[in-house]
Amino acid sequence: MKFSIERAALLKAVSQAQSVVERRNTIPILANVLIEAEGNQVQFRATDLDIEVVDKADAMVERAGATTVSAVTLHEIVRKLPDGAQVTLSEDGTAGRLTVAAGRSNFNLATLPKEDFPVMASSEYASNFSAPAPVLRRLFDKSKFAISTEETRYYLNGVYMHISESDGARVLRCVATDGHRLARIDADLPSGAEDMPGVIVPRKTVGELRKLLDDDELQVAVSVSETKVRFATPDITLTSKVIDGTFPDYTRVIPQGNTKKMEVDASDFARAVDRVATVSSERSRAVKLALDEDRLILSVNAPDSGAAEEELAVAYGDERLEIGFNAKYLLEIASQVDRENAVFLFNSSGDPTLMREGNDTSAVYVVMPMRV
Amino acid sequence: MKFSIERAALLKAVSQAQSVVERRNTIPILANVLIEAEGNQVQFRATDLDIEVVDKADAMVERAGATTVSAVTLHEIVRKLPDGAQVTLSEDGTAGRLTVAAGRSNFNLATLPKEDFPVMASSEYASNFSAPAPVLRRLFDKSKFAISTEETRYYLNGVYMHISESDGARVLRCVATDGHRLARIDADLPSGAEDMPGVIVPRKTVGELRKLLDDDELQVAVSVSETKVRFATPDITLTSKVIDGTFPDYTRVIPQGNTKKMEVDASDFARAVDRVATVSSERSRAVKLALDEDRLILSVNAPDSGAAEEELAVAYGDERLEIGFNAKYLLEIASQVDRENAVFLFNSSGDPTLMREGNDTSAVYVVMPMRV
Repeated sequence: MKFSIERAALLKAVSQAQSVVERRNTIPILANVLIEAEGNQVQFRATDLDIEVVDKADAMVERAGATTVSAVTLHEIVRKLPDGAQVTLSEDGTAGRLTVAAGRSNFNLATLPKEDFPVMASSEYASNFSAPAPVLRRLFDKSKFAISTEETRYYLNGVYMHISESDGARVLRCVATDGHRLARIDADLPSGAEDMPGVIVPRKTVGELRKLLDDDELQVAVSVSETKVRFATPDITLTSKVIDGTFPDYTRVIPQGNTKKMEVDASDFARAVDRVATVSSERSRAVKLALDEDRLILSVNAPDSGAAEEELAVAYGDERLEIGFNAKYLLEIASQVDRENAVFLFNSSGDPTLMREGNDTSAVYVVMPMRV
Repeated sequence: MKFSIERAALLKAVSQAQSVVERRNTIPILANVLIEAEGNQVQFRATDLDIEVVDKADAMVERAGATTVSAVTLHEIVRKLPDGAQVTLSEDGTAGRLTVAAGRSNFNLATLPKEDFPVMASSEYASNFSAPAPVLRRLFDKSKFAISTEETRYYLNGVYMHISESDGARVLRCVATDGHRLARIDADLPSGAEDMPGVIVPRKTVGELRKLLDDDELQVAVSVSETKVRFATPDITLTSKVIDGTFPDYTRVIPQGNTKKMEVDASDFARAVDRVATVSSERSRAVKLALDEDRLILSVNAPDSGAAEEELAVAYGDERLEIGFNAKYLLEIASQVDRENAVFLFNSSGDPTLMREGNDTSAVYVVMPMRV
């Protein structure tokens, strides 16, 4: 194998590969990236056995071939090469060494046989469709904060992507929850997605997927089966197992009858929550919301260290209400609002509260109250 | 006590105080900042019993007085208040509470009696002089990287500031070493400093001092006794105990007879060292320098993971030489060079090597070789 490639293209391809590789693993080959050169293209493949990413890059291939080297070392080297450098990677096949040369720098890296590299079995996908990058970005960005980190509730350790209905229309929906808060984000149903099975996309996959979605103009090909999901751009293919479990019936958690409506500037609200929470050093800091005619008083009371109170002008016309929340959850939810005012719908101090942006029902958040 | 102060002025004063406070300490009062309001000024005082910092700020004092509150909580609150806010701090003396009010935010913080706050005993200083901030900045910035972190060699856990001689003139000198590398930085002797006793300024003090030295125009008042050192700007006074120990005779370590001279672009050199070191994952990565007529070959050989080699054009006219160094030490020393080429003076592969910037002997670095 021998090929030349521009440093920037190589860095981009190797970056994604090395981020999939687990830093601590006991199987040496899993620390490596499989490099395959053929035609005028090179593929970089990395896996942690649950996720596989394949990056394609154009290159001047002088001699086709394949080998594997440490993803982290290769990434570090390429990162430190000067901008604009032309990099030549070559392997003579017998020495078990890959040479990386650029300018007056020469590296000689240990390889492992390409045959040992575990390539993920290909699958039949039940559903294939394409969606614009910004649509997928919104679905996952706005839901991922609510993913549970409790390993015992493994079926909550991801985003549940499935088909549902909203206002009579079928939608592509992402839901995540950890039992304390929930995010439900809808998008128009892409054509071809009608029969998509619902899948739980693991947290790590959501993180890796995010890196494919920065380009607003990109169409992303999505393939879904009962056990796997695949996202592909022209350069990168990300394949992942999905979580083998049943996502709970979240619809029961979303309150339907909350009528006490408060409208507030989301960033003013977030900053006020952040400030009053300062006086308590506890991990689960409870913030009390006291609502009265067009007035919200946020307060925190930590007997040992102090108390804080802040008043905000809001739109509220219902009866007086006092309700407590975890400050962190309130902050995270308020920071999802990017266009309009945050609209909170309360029922009572013991019931889950619903939040959305203005009148938009395509992104809905639920947060459980806390006793204060 | 009651006073009003602009948020930016308060934040600046409290920032320095909270950074002196130790995050983990078992004496509650040491987590607090002592606030003293009188005339049209407020003083913020914090200590860890070894270092004391006093920040002065102008304020509208309505009622003189003093109290102590958690430095970290106060800092967090002030940081989160909106830019431009006018902040009022008040205490009625009986309730043991400090009120912090700004706009519609109200905080009520637990206090501890001002009488419990340990104020550092005042000292007689043997020497008082003043030095421009950029001069002190250079003395400490260029030496601090070499401070030892070994607690058993406590006398190396700081920068040795003392009076010495260079080329027949008396100089103010800072030296730090950890036994593997050494930095010796000289500045013109400020008038009044002639009788300054040599003191070892502890690492934490060096870090805190750095924050006083950003303003190029500032003159800093320096006071030194056998046991304490004080740095004062118009707003901030930093007092610190010095390390009670004897700094070793470093002059023996600085080679006088090194004649093999190599001149190299410092940043090219640093980047090349950084690149070749990539292939080894060991903590103490040895880089080999092989010198020949105007040519330097840097190389690293890590049998398990790979090898790297890079060639650099240098000015060198002496006999062939091979010498090894710890990559991290070489990098740190090369990154001290900011104006000219780095000049290395070697003797043999077993002897300490000297480095300086061009022909400037006011900043000299020594690094011990490593067997490769």
